Amino acid sequence: MPLTGHNYIAGARSAEGAGTFFSVDPRSKTSGDLPFHNATRGEVDRAVAAAVAAFDEMRRYPSSKIADFLDEVAAQIEALGDELLHTADRETGLGLPRLTGERGRTTGQIRSFAALLRDGAYLRAIINSEGPGQPAIKQMQFPLGPVAIFAASNFPFAFAVAGGDSASALAAGCPIVVKAHPGHPATSELFAQAISAAVAKQGFPAGTFSMLQGSGIDVGGWLVEHDGIEAVGFTGSLRGGRAIHDIAALRPRPIPVYAEMGSVNPVVITQAALVERADEIAEGLVGSVTMGTGQFCTNPGLILLEDSDAARDFITAVTEQMAAAPEGVLLNEAVAAGLEGAVSQTAANAQIEVLTGGDANADGDAFCYTNTVMQTSAAAIRADDRLQVEHFGPVTLFALCADRADLRAAVDALEGNLTTTVHAEDSELADIGELLHQLREKAGRVIWNGFPTGVAVVRAMQHGGPYPATTAPGTTSVGMNAIYRFMRPIAFQNVPEALLPPALQDGNPLGILRLVDDAYTDGVV
Amino acid sequence: MPLTGHNYIAGARSAEGAGTFFSVDPRSKTSGDLPFHNATRGEVDRAVAAAVAAFDEMRRYPSSKIADFLDEVAAQIEALGDELLHTADRETGLGLPRLTGERGRTTGQIRSFAALLRDGAYLRAIINSEGPGQPAIKQMQFPLGPVAIFAASNFPFAFAVAGGDSASALAAGCPIVVKAHPGHPATSELFAQAISAAVAKQGFPAGTFSMLQGSGIDVGGWLVEHDGIEAVGFTGSLRGGRAIHDIAALRPRPIPVYAEMGSVNPVVITQAALVERADEIAEGLVGSVTMGTGQFCTNPGLILLEDSDAARDFITAVTEQMAAAPEGVLLNEAVAAGLEGAVSQTAANAQIEVLTGGDANADGDAFCYTNTVMQTSAAAIRADDRLQVEHFGPVTLFALCADRADLRAAVDALEGNLTTTVHAEDSELADIGELLHQLREKAGRVIWNGFPTGVAVVRAMQHGGPYPATTAPGTTSVGMNAIYRFMRPIAFQNVPEALLPPALQDGNPLGILRLVDDAYTDGVV
Repeated sequence: MPLTGHNYIAGARSAEGAGTFFSVDPRSKTSGDLPFHNATRGEVDRAVAAAVAAFDEMRRYPSSKIADFLDEVAAQIEALGDELLHTADRETGLGLPRLTGERGRTTGQIRSFAALLRDGAYLRAIINSEGPGQPAIKQMQFPLGPVAIFAASNFPFAFAVAGGDSASALAAGCPIVVKAHPGHPATSELFAQAISAAVAKQGFPAGTFSMLQGSGIDVGGWLVEHDGIEAVGFTGSLRGGRAIHDIAALRPRPIPVYAEMGSVNPVVITQAALVERADEIAEGLVGSVTMGTGQFCTNPGLILLEDSDAARDFITAVTEQMAAAPEGVLLNEAVAAGLEGAVSQTAANAQIEVLTGGDANADGDAFCYTNTVMQTSAAAIRADDRLQVEHFGPVTLFALCADRADLRAAVDALEGNLTTTVHAEDSELADIGELLHQLREKAGRVIWNGFPTGVAVVRAMQHGGPYPATTAPGTTSVGMNAIYRFMRPIAFQNVPEALLPPALQDGNPLGILRLVDDAYTDGVV
Repeated sequence: MPLTGHNYIAGARSAEGAGTFFSVDPRSKTSGDLPFHNATRGEVDRAVAAAVAAFDEMRRYPSSKIADFLDEVAAQIEALGDELLHTADRETGLGLPRLTGERGRTTGQIRSFAALLRDGAYLRAIINSEGPGQPAIKQMQFPLGPVAIFAASNFPFAFAVAGGDSASALAAGCPIVVKAHPGHPATSELFAQAISAAVAKQGFPAGTFSMLQGSGIDVGGWLVEHDGIEAVGFTGSLRGGRAIHDIAALRPRPIPVYAEMGSVNPVVITQAALVERADEIAEGLVGSVTMGTGQFCTNPGLILLEDSDAARDFITAVTEQMAAAPEGVLLNEAVAAGLEGAVSQTAANAQIEVLTGGDANADGDAFCYTNTVMQTSAAAIRADDRLQVEHFGPVTLFALCADRADLRAAVDALEGNLTTTVHAEDSELADIGELLHQLREKAGRVIWNGFPTGVAVVRAMQHGGPYPATTAPGTTSVGMNAIYRFMRPIAFQNVPEALLPPALQDGNPLGILRLVDDAYTDGVV
């Protein structure tokens, strides 16, 4: 289907607004010809009303029906073919190899949710059967209702219109209204066509899916304020996520906001690890910092080292490799401006030394930024929270610690992060546990002898962490447990079998794992 | 130990504030002699600092150690003996039989958490073992950190200083700072003595537990604003819970607030049920409305009936029984004033008819309110949200519906509730499913042919619901899943076995149920 620049509201195209914006190629800073229409308040209202109506149908659907729909969404995305890759590459500069991999991840995680639904244990069915003076109580998870999703810029497939937030909300049984990211509107429209086709083909209510375009903050604000929305999934900046969190919290009827807002992902490297593997770690670190032009929420942006000759040699080596590494393209003008602002603010601190980079190359043909390494002390990190700001791009900051105690104090002063990492040697296992478990308090994932970029989409993954990494540290936005952000438990007391969902019927017709009278079983009651 | 009127801060008594208040006997409106000291800001700071320090120890504790501590807390509560019952009876007027039962529930739920911890499956351990291009990822639940607990007035044992919120936070491994309810300060001090004794006996850090007294809103505000607090558990009024929610949401570092704020607990009774069981239902309803002088968050405060002679006869019968039922004592002056205000506001609506009661008996010896029945139409409920206000006391409101469609429309207009109830006959099973599942969207628990008061403390219980019943519909404050309000998942990537908690070690030394490579097993990896 040709691109139209329209919003997709419950299966129909709509372009009521006068305001438009254009897709921009970050490699050439040139705009496309097709105007994309900012959604109006009326269009937001229509999308949410359709989602509310759709929920009245979807909430009756068995898991298997939603699983079939998710499989169809994945198939429709694949049916977009190479046009999807080329369109996204033109809008984001991420390159075909990366985008090809990301497409596989995106359809893969959608199908993983379908598999989760077919297994059924995700419903967390719990049954306490009737006893003396005790009623029968049976609970399971149910969908929350219409969800607003804010797409990210840096994963135009895996965390955008049909990304992880959308997939987990749909899997939960919730209709979604997606605010597309203005950095890749054409890519977003292709996904909207794919999901809309899946909705139609599977006979789901039209309001199951809407996608709204918007280059400013109005559309998102209207969406979060709307009484028909029951929860929000967001992946993006701290500023954006916090604003949405506050709007949602102060609504007449507050709703949960699951915002993943990035992180500096501190990495601790011990002296022993440097002695043993300095070259290997330097190479890995440079690769992790520059991958995808550093535009990952798990980019290692803060490296803590105990001061030593080995540490200083390591910093020199990393700096040289960073200076020599090819310069990548940034996603868009907003990312370029944000990065320049963040590095400028950090570099203005008297305790910061810029070792390489720090230049925006504003006159170049492309949106880009030089690979940048900065250095400071652990004391400076403790003294000024602003040095923990995320530099969203190919930038990292070394903090030298006087000794282990200074390092521990710096870790204590860390804000919440998505990840923390330790590089250490097996010979240190007896001593390193305290530090490792101190680092665990600062993050959702702790990595040993690795790098934080590259987030495996598996059941055990936790992609979250204490604020400011997220607004909801008990939840994850990657992996199957992401579904619980959009579900809630409901208990039935003495309700007749005929009125219970199959997952709660005594005979266990779905054959799923349940907690029955305090024991896990896939048997009957 | 004698009562002192002091705050309990990390094992030491403290009374720095000049402001004091007194325990009041609601049966006689007479004050006790002992002044209870409002905590000062400095005392709040000390309590939280001690909790932060305690968490640095507690976060290392195995579940079994916390289980032993919980058992000791239960034993210490029992060791308070009858003094606890008599003190609470004098402060709350709830009567010895009810309080004796509530004590058993309180120690019972504490011991249930101990059993949960010893079982270990609650850790939700998930393991994905290493594979080609895939790291080993292992996650489980960890405690969030220091938790502020706001005690309720209406459950001086089961939802107060050592109540469900406290027990679940401690079970999670979180130190707690409890803001006692000013309605029963002496009872609160006894519990503080019991928990402090358990802390000392089990060698837990002193900051594991603090209790602060306060008759106003200052102490709670300071507590929720404090950067050392990671989460809040609250049981009380909508006004109080919402205020705390908003403070927490707007902190520089927002934290979750789990507020259970009561409910009107709508009950639908079908025509067929009235024809078959009017007398039985009337008796049950009157018992549920007047039990504990109606001071339950699950009190049935709104009854929806299709208009008919049977319905009008039923209302007449309930009204007569309510008028004849003995008048109970209210908990305290604030409850009496709140109830009078709420009923007055409702009765001022031109669509409301007061059938019996509606008087505060302000001149009596005791804080009390006449058993009250009001009547209105479903249309009036739909037209004015204020008619869904909770009347916290022995009060219920009938809403007559023109027909089934009018009933369904009224259910659609319901706000969030802790419970919804249907009384219907087996002959209606084929038709009633739609209504039942419409009611499920409005509550955390759906009851068939019963009454909402009486909340079984079992695994399948869900005591929560959409706002304004709670601020976190995905969570429960009764039952074992309450623990997850105060935990968060953390994943370990390629971390050596020696550094992992036992629950995540390949050999499964605890022998607990885990999700290993997508299959549930209590075996080894």
